[in-house]
Parts: sequence; C-alpha cells; structure tokens
Amino acid sequence: MRIDLMTLFPDMCERVYTESIIGRAIKKGVLTVESHNIRDYSDNKHHNVDDTPYGGGEGMLMSAQPIYGCYESLLKNGKPYVIYMSPKGGVLTQQKTKELAELPHIAILCGHYEGVDQRVLDAIVDEEISIGDYVLTGGELPALVLIDCVARMLDGTLSSEEGRVRESHYNGLLEYPQYTKPAVWHDREVPEVLLSGHHENIAHWRREMSLRETLQKRPDLLEKADLTQQERDFLKKLQKEATQNKQS
Amino acid sequence: MRIDLMTLFPDMCERVYTESIIGRAIKKGVLTVESHNIRDYSDNKHHNVDDTPYGGGEGMLMSAQPIYGCYESLLKNGKPYVIYMSPKGGVLTQQKTKELAELPHIAILCGHYEGVDQRVLDAIVDEEISIGDYVLTGGELPALVLIDCVARMLDGTLSSEEGRVRESHYNGLLEYPQYTKPAVWHDREVPEVLLSGHHENIAHWRREMSLRETLQKRPDLLEKADLTQQERDFLKKLQKEATQNKQS
Repeated sequence: MRIDLMTLFPDMCERVYTESIIGRAIKKGVLTVESHNIRDYSDNKHHNVDDTPYGGGEGMLMSAQPIYGCYESLLKNGKPYVIYMSPKGGVLTQQKTKELAELPHIAILCGHYEGVDQRVLDAIVDEEISIGDYVLTGGELPALVLIDCVARMLDGTLSSEEGRVRESHYNGLLEYPQYTKPAVWHDREVPEVLLSGHHENIAHWRREMSLRETLQKRPDLLEKADLTQQERDFLKKLQKEATQNKQS
Repeated sequence: MRIDLMTLFPDMCERVYTESIIGRAIKKGVLTVESHNIRDYSDNKHHNVDDTPYGGGEGMLMSAQPIYGCYESLLKNGKPYVIYMSPKGGVLTQQKTKELAELPHIAILCGHYEGVDQRVLDAIVDEEISIGDYVLTGGELPALVLIDCVARMLDGTLSSEEGRVRESHYNGLLEYPQYTKPAVWHDREVPEVLLSGHHENIAHWRREMSLRETLQKRPDLLEKADLTQQERDFLKKLQKEATQNKQS
C-alpha cells in the first residue's frame, strides 16, 4: 500500500513514521509512506500557501493552487483515494480503517490555519474523515493516527501471533485486566486464577472480566457485541447486583 | 499548566511539540511539557520494561515497577492528575479538553506492547481517556492529540482574534465553506455573496451554509446545537426539500 501525505509540516511526521508501527510496516515492505511539503508547490515567488478569506473573518485560509499542485505531483503513482482530515468528516471507526487498508493508494490532505479553500476540496477530495469531536490545530496528528491504524491492519505488519491478539482488541468488548511479574507488587497480588495454570478457568475469568469492564465503562458497546445467551444472562445478573447495591 | 508525558518513545513526541500549537503554548509561557522515558526508571540491570502476561497469552505487558518509578519522579512538581490513554477510557470530547485545561498539572501515561500491568494503573491513574473507537499501537499519538487539544484551550496560546474563531469551531455546528483568492480558480467561482461586501448577507449565508453542512454530514450535532426558531424552521424546510427530491 502507498500513502502520500500532503502537509505543511513534513518533518513533524517523518519522526513519527520511524518510531511507530508505521516504521515497522515500511520495513516489512507492506507500506510506503511519503510526505510532501505543500509549500514546495506554491507558484508564488514567496512560496505563500495562504490568504485571507473572502467575505471577511479572522485567520488565514490555505489557497487552492499549492494544494492542487501537490496533488497533481502524486498522480505519477496513479490516482490516489484522497482523504481530507476534517471535523466535518465521518468519525473514524475500526471498520473504516479496515476498508482503507484494502486500498492500494491513498493520499491524505492535512489542513491548517483556519481552513482550506472549498474549491480545491471539491476538486480533489473523495472523503472527509474526523478522528473525533474535539478541536485540533492541524490535520497532521489526525493523519498520523489514521496511518497508524491502517498500517497495523496491513497483512504482514504484525506477526500472526500479534494478529490474533489484535483481533481480540476489536471483537466488540473491552479487554480484561492483565498482570505481569512479580506476583506481588506493592502489596497488590495477581488474581489467583491467573496463577492456577487452569486454562479453562483463566479463559472464563477473562471473558467475565471483559464483560464487567465493558458494562461498567462502555455499556454502549454491548449492543453490538457478539454474545452467547449465557453471557447475556451474566450481564443481567451484574446489572441486577449493581441496582441492588445502589438501593441499599 | 504543566504536562508530564510518561512514554517509551520520548523522541517521537519532542518533534511534535516544537512544530505544533503545543510549541506555541510553550513559547508563550502558558504550558510546560516534559517527556520522561519510562525505561530510565527500570531497576532491572537490562532496563527491561516488559514481561509476559500471567495466565498466558501472546504479547508482552509493561511492568508496574518502571512506570511507578517514573510516576514517583514527577511528584517533585506536586501530585499530577494522571491520565492513561486507553481504549477503555471515556471518549475524548471538546468539553473534556476544556475541563482538563483548567487543571494545573497533568501526567499522561502512554501504554505500548499489549497492555500495562493492571496494578500500576490501579495505583496511579485518575482517569482513562480514549480518542476514539479504533485501535492504535501505542498511547503516544493519542497523548499528543490530547495535548494539542488542551494547549489551544489555554488562555494565551491563541490570539484573541483566533480565540473568537476558535469559539465558532465548537458552537455545535460544522463550519461554513470558506474561499480565498483568486475569485476564479479552475473555472470555479467564489459564491457571489462573499464578494458583495454586504456583511449582514454574508453572515446570513454563512449561518445557513453551516446549518446545511451539519444537516447533511452530522445531523446528530443538531440535537444539541443552540438554534433560534427561525433556524429550526429553515432546517425543517431543508429536510422537506430533501424528502421531496428523493421521492421525485
């Protein structure tokens, strides 16, 4: 897979590539990532990339021309699927990262200043994506989040063992609590069942803890989770207990 | 405000500080950010920071000791409010970033590998925060997203003009389309009203476009938006038109 990043801050991004799962995907040869400095494509002699908004208002907008020039330079590698990181986009989900990981070539436009001339967005953007309902200063961190998510979904980035662990991360429940050595730390003991060596009991405990964690912290996830009737009964029991505790 | 970051990848984060709004908040003296390498606090002679999970399973877990040692070193600057970037946390919202921006001192723990020993989380973490329902490899990018959001909320980071623009970004509607020079680009014209100089018409057009954009792309936001009766009527009209267009 190939990802081209159109940004005013390529250096900020490069460092993240090398020290993250993105770097690993690149080393394994399953991902090529290249940052392109939009400023290099300005046909203005001062290399300006922004101007004041029509109709008035504070702040500066990124101009169409340098972005379009940058976009045109990417076409030598074929037409990419162009994503604009934007608060107006649909909010990123794990399902969306899976879909994007199937594409051969994407380009990500990172906005900055107070926005981007709408006409270049209309001309080149296939999809706007937001990473969440909070305000960021630029599209770089959101783009890096997106690339990280996509990079770990590519076949060959994670080992098959890690892949299995990975799957467990998005089966719809929150993860059970985990413990590593020593068995006692600051007077806190590892739950006894985990030291028992009894695989079936351990699996059962972990599944119950996942259900407890999810019920307590993200009950909205339970609606879509794939649960057995026994698990649904267990959740009902937990809910009943919680109600009784509140009343007493 | 002071933010301490506990991470295994401090270099990756440093670069982002300098080339983002975080750097500007630091320069303006309203924010101090320091990265701490958890590995430096390992009391193991090989500076190990992870070990296998009790009860079996793939992957490695971050051990309690180095994280706790790193946390203890922060206490010389007072007790921080400790956040763990985690898919189990409540999903970040603009309201949450506002609340965090009021705190004098926060510390952010970035997890890695397949997780962190639950006991050190129980011992030091005040709140778990997730940036969204997608799977990332480590807590560094989420932490940087959080710091960026918080940095721009601090008094003094943005100019007062930018602050006003900033407010408009989270009044509950998506932003209207924006345009900058030239007036015609690739045969695409700037909407005429924006060239009129008629401030009232421009304000009216922008508000209507915000309503249109929000209705089309994020109708869920309209429920909580602060709207006049006239604006609600306009939305009803738009919805009626859309239904008619579908039927015809």
